[in-house]
Amino acid sequence: MQEKFMQRALDISLKGNPSPNPFVGCVIVKNNEIIAEGFHESFGKKHAEAVALEKAGSQAEDAVLYCSLEPCNHTGKTPPCTQAIISAGIKKVVAATLDPNPLMQGKSLEQLEQAGIETQAGLLKEKAEKVNEAFFKFQKTKKPFVILKAATTLDGKIATKSFDSKWISSEESRKKVHELRSKVDAVLVGENTVLKDNPQLTSRIENGRNPLRVIVSSKKLSSELNVFSDSNFLIFTTDSDFFSGQKFKAKVIKAKGENNLVDLNKLLSVLGEKNISSLLVEGGSGIFTSFLKEKLVDKLLLCISPKVLGKGISVFGDLGIEKIRNAIELKNVSFEEVGTDFWITGYLAKKKKREEEN
Amino acid sequence: MQEKFMQRALDISLKGNPSPNPFVGCVIVKNNEIIAEGFHESFGKKHAEAVALEKAGSQAEDAVLYCSLEPCNHTGKTPPCTQAIISAGIKKVVAATLDPNPLMQGKSLEQLEQAGIETQAGLLKEKAEKVNEAFFKFQKTKKPFVILKAATTLDGKIATKSFDSKWISSEESRKKVHELRSKVDAVLVGENTVLKDNPQLTSRIENGRNPLRVIVSSKKLSSELNVFSDSNFLIFTTDSDFFSGQKFKAKVIKAKGENNLVDLNKLLSVLGEKNISSLLVEGGSGIFTSFLKEKLVDKLLLCISPKVLGKGISVFGDLGIEKIRNAIELKNVSFEEVGTDFWITGYLAKKKKREEEN
Repeated sequence: MQEKFMQRALDISLKGNPSPNPFVGCVIVKNNEIIAEGFHESFGKKHAEAVALEKAGSQAEDAVLYCSLEPCNHTGKTPPCTQAIISAGIKKVVAATLDPNPLMQGKSLEQLEQAGIETQAGLLKEKAEKVNEAFFKFQKTKKPFVILKAATTLDGKIATKSFDSKWISSEESRKKVHELRSKVDAVLVGENTVLKDNPQLTSRIENGRNPLRVIVSSKKLSSELNVFSDSNFLIFTTDSDFFSGQKFKAKVIKAKGENNLVDLNKLLSVLGEKNISSLLVEGGSGIFTSFLKEKLVDKLLLCISPKVLGKGISVFGDLGIEKIRNAIELKNVSFEEVGTDFWITGYLAKKKKREEEN
Repeated sequence: MQEKFMQRALDISLKGNPSPNPFVGCVIVKNNEIIAEGFHESFGKKHAEAVALEKAGSQAEDAVLYCSLEPCNHTGKTPPCTQAIISAGIKKVVAATLDPNPLMQGKSLEQLEQAGIETQAGLLKEKAEKVNEAFFKFQKTKKPFVILKAATTLDGKIATKSFDSKWISSEESRKKVHELRSKVDAVLVGENTVLKDNPQLTSRIENGRNPLRVIVSSKKLSSELNVFSDSNFLIFTTDSDFFSGQKFKAKVIKAKGENNLVDLNKLLSVLGEKNISSLLVEGGSGIFTSFLKEKLVDKLLLCISPKVLGKGISVFGDLGIEKIRNAIELKNVSFEEVGTDFWITGYLAKKKKREEEN
């Protein structure tokens, strides 16, 4: 019964698009029936608990409140939820997860306990952490959650040997990519992808939100390219002189690493400072390879189309792996059919663990 | 109701291992209840209909007989089933498919009709054709049904750049390969796989049946290799002089094609003459590439392990494809989780169709 209510809170949480805030859903229950619910719609708007409490009104007295994340106890863009819960006369609060911020973890529930409200934490914890996987990583590390997404053939190619790549994946998959872009704070591509595909990197779906476009480049790029069509971009480069002129002003960050490549660790730190909590890395092969080699990928999304190309451009380049036992292994792998394609999603083992394996 | 009985006939048909005969299941129904059933266990043994009729005995009178393939009307290793059906007093015969042999198609049902028995054909036809896909192709073309099977990483590699390949796939997948070998008439590998992996190519499972081992080689191979450990092998080579000595006597077929490679069309014809109705092509990359280029593959089985290798040996080599629209596309793709791996199965478009697309 309890799980059903929390599942509902998780389900409705996903209706919002609150980044860099977390997805939160809240359900208020009395006599085993839901009397009100709410979710955090977008950054700056009311929190899920506030929405649900407002709907419940005086009915909230002695009710049980289910929330997918520990309520806040601070005044930010909106007043603290703990205070609203106490004022409404809620009897018990059930949270799926505690606040991931080490300084906050459990603090709100403590405050509620002190006000005489019963609390419980950890119901559907794993599911709740997955819903907010980017937020959790960002809170803990101050670096964005990195999703590597590639569309490949069955034999691991992203283009033919003549660099033709349109379209490997189905229309349904491409739509799903636009949805995905709408849910992340930033997308990233390398110079070769910008030059070869001249992509817009926008979310072309209804109510889609355009993410920040991050370009990684070790060479000069024309300001006429589609990725520079509006000011919602950022360039990380090995040499700031490549990008001069009004259009690039305050948009260029020098981050030179080894081998005349952009320092991706620095890139992630800078994006974190700019409150980018999730980053979708979209290509090409060189960028994918660098992110994997540096062990900076959290989640891998492969959209595999039931096609075979033979010789062509492999999705990943040299990772320095000589033995199968040292291959990068994915965890918690899941699978979805999208149009005619197969989407395989998996998580990369933690950095420390992976090094031990090698 | 009818479908339920035919589904049962199809399900039990798979209990047999009758190659080069087809899988056949038979169910006898009276008053909407199954009173007897049977399947064709192995080549030379009683047909499914005979088994079921024998079990039913005098109860078969006025009953309905469901069979997954049109009954035979000839005396081969066993007496004709049509005669047994007529003698038993069966009222109606429902067949999922007609005999695929163009000279036979429908002949048995005609004979039953003439004996006053009602007949019906085509119930669960597609499913029944899939169960006997190898038999159907073999009957129509006199060439074996070709299954290309490869174990790859998520990025389409079958070995690291240092040729390490043990093991890409999970233990469960490797067991499934042994089951697969047990169900085909022959397995095939090229010289490089024989030399690098020294495989046994046997079916190492309980009651496994070892298929004929077909070796394709343009060079001399030592008779000490595991594939030659017993006499159940056949070599197709560009030069018979590579294989001399008692062990290879009557085992070597010269089939020199273009570019000093073995002529795979000739190979399939010869195997067909030898009553090989199904062939599992197991590698390596060169052999896969040749079979695909020559458009000789009927079914593709990819066992994809959730690992990433980066630079390594790609599963397929140069297929001469320059444009995505000319990629080899799979039809009727299905998907199965085996251990930690994903098995993707698909069929290749017919030769004529594919050429039009290019």
